[in-house]
Amino acid sequence: MTTHQLPPVCIVGLGLIGGSLMRDLHSRGERVYGFTLHGAGAARRDGFDVSDSVEEVLRRAEDDGALVVVAVPMRAVASVLDQVAELAPSCGITDVVSVKKPVYDLVVERGMESRYVGGHPMAGTEFSGWTASQEGLFASAAWAVTFDYAREHPGDPEWASLFTVVCRMAAVVGAEAVPVSVDRHDEAVARVSHLPHVIAEALALVGDHGGTLAQSLSAGSFRGATRVASTDPELVRNMCETNAESLVPVLDEFIDLLQGARDSLSGESRSLEDLTKSGHRAHLRMAARKGARRESVSPVEISSRPIMRVHPGTPGWEKQLVQIESVGGRVEVF
Amino acid sequence: MTTHQLPPVCIVGLGLIGGSLMRDLHSRGERVYGFTLHGAGAARRDGFDVSDSVEEVLRRAEDDGALVVVAVPMRAVASVLDQVAELAPSCGITDVVSVKKPVYDLVVERGMESRYVGGHPMAGTEFSGWTASQEGLFASAAWAVTFDYAREHPGDPEWASLFTVVCRMAAVVGAEAVPVSVDRHDEAVARVSHLPHVIAEALALVGDHGGTLAQSLSAGSFRGATRVASTDPELVRNMCETNAESLVPVLDEFIDLLQGARDSLSGESRSLEDLTKSGHRAHLRMAARKGARRESVSPVEISSRPIMRVHPGTPGWEKQLVQIESVGGRVEVF
Repeated sequence: MTTHQLPPVCIVGLGLIGGSLMRDLHSRGERVYGFTLHGAGAARRDGFDVSDSVEEVLRRAEDDGALVVVAVPMRAVASVLDQVAELAPSCGITDVVSVKKPVYDLVVERGMESRYVGGHPMAGTEFSGWTASQEGLFASAAWAVTFDYAREHPGDPEWASLFTVVCRMAAVVGAEAVPVSVDRHDEAVARVSHLPHVIAEALALVGDHGGTLAQSLSAGSFRGATRVASTDPELVRNMCETNAESLVPVLDEFIDLLQGARDSLSGESRSLEDLTKSGHRAHLRMAARKGARRESVSPVEISSRPIMRVHPGTPGWEKQLVQIESVGGRVEVF
Repeated sequence: MTTHQLPPVCIVGLGLIGGSLMRDLHSRGERVYGFTLHGAGAARRDGFDVSDSVEEVLRRAEDDGALVVVAVPMRAVASVLDQVAELAPSCGITDVVSVKKPVYDLVVERGMESRYVGGHPMAGTEFSGWTASQEGLFASAAWAVTFDYAREHPGDPEWASLFTVVCRMAAVVGAEAVPVSVDRHDEAVARVSHLPHVIAEALALVGDHGGTLAQSLSAGSFRGATRVASTDPELVRNMCETNAESLVPVLDEFIDLLQGARDSLSGESRSLEDLTKSGHRAHLRMAARKGARRESVSPVEISSRPIMRVHPGTPGWEKQLVQIESVGGRVEVF
């Protein structure tokens, strides 16, 4: 009798996210194996089932009906999808890439959308690669799960099953599946992830221009806002550039706010009242929505994301997903 | 036989900083008392020597030769200085206000500069008031100590003694005294403290504009960069407005960087290469200077601030301070 909650999982790419996913699935007793270009030896020494050959793992995935998780940088997604098309033509596919529309476009170009459910765990650290991977990285994190296909092609039971598997995988590693359409995902992460990365880079520069004295006087506020500037710059560049369409207007919005504050501060009134008041209120609203989840001192973690139960494949379930998306809710599949 | 390292310390204003200073000095066995407009009852219940009357504590300070620490918001500094002039005319004065030039101007206006040494501990949390105060807040933090008077009036032994006392007080609470002139201080903190606060407010707004979905998907990078937006907006406003002269050009520098990144990202190349590369390098430089101090996993905390020993009052010591300032070093007085 098997106690597996998931089909075998084949992870292509074992960096920070793919590697941490492998560790978590393995520790929960799921069947997981994968391929990585860098660090396969280290991963094997750590006791994981890792191959140097992407062809080998994809053939194996096809043989045992695995879910294929594409966990490579955006620039490598197209070629991995081509390999999946060739070597694992009947496997379900998900991914963990930080933008969703560009991935979905590649999927649609290849006519693979009926067996693809996009994913994006909102977790990470400023480090990268297998050696940075860790157990528990996804605990209480949102795991965005895309559902554009269901709206375009309602009533596909196989896709509904795949959606269930991806949501379940998120749950198995302690994350909360948040259904999103690819456009709304990319707009939201431009605001709460990509913009903070751009800010961290620019703020690090402004601090560095202040020389050793500024460095010596820097403390928590600077450290907090620049921490992610230690992320591999190629990764930051990659995620921002692939999401340029959403990020540019968000950058404009942010620059406008700063320019307004600057003008007010340098004007006759020398006032920063508008920005500090409205910024503080916005922060309180965000924190209130977040509720007890992050700030609680209680040992019991309570998610503030509204939970909504969905039975994928039942009539009208696609509309439920749209409702859940509109409140940033998490979905529990059953 | 006394084992006190400091004269009695009279703290006017017992919010986050003043209150935490009182807790630390008390726990190290120093003589400390103070006044606060809000929270005196709570402070007394916590076992501290706190009065409701600023007149009373200042008269007491004059009687026992205390060091007066001005720990009120900038807008209240002028009136406190007036009260010190009237009620504690022979006491040495320091402060913990986050800008130094505006405070120094008020001091000079009142002709009190020969008995004033400015201070600014680079520590804090996003909370305020006595109830937010805590022991250990200043551990390993920089404590900026101003020395403009020494350059303008070299060879004043009484001022040199006061400088020694202020540096020693920083050391008693675990901080590292970093000598600075008021102008260079204000420029540096505009970069590493006030700009991060402005960023936090504006980023909170951009996140909030993304609604509940954006909130639901927000994670570490957003949380790190917006944490200080929960600071009392009046405090943020106050420190930024009083440092507008330094903050406005720093804001311009930051906006220019973002605008350049935005133009590059929306241009034909769609590239963020310049910003991510230079930002990452800047971050590495800052982190390298910081050395083992913050990032070390070693239980032994090693300060990366170069330490320089100074004997205040000896010929030429003022020039040593300028040298220490230029490298953001910490001063050990003996």
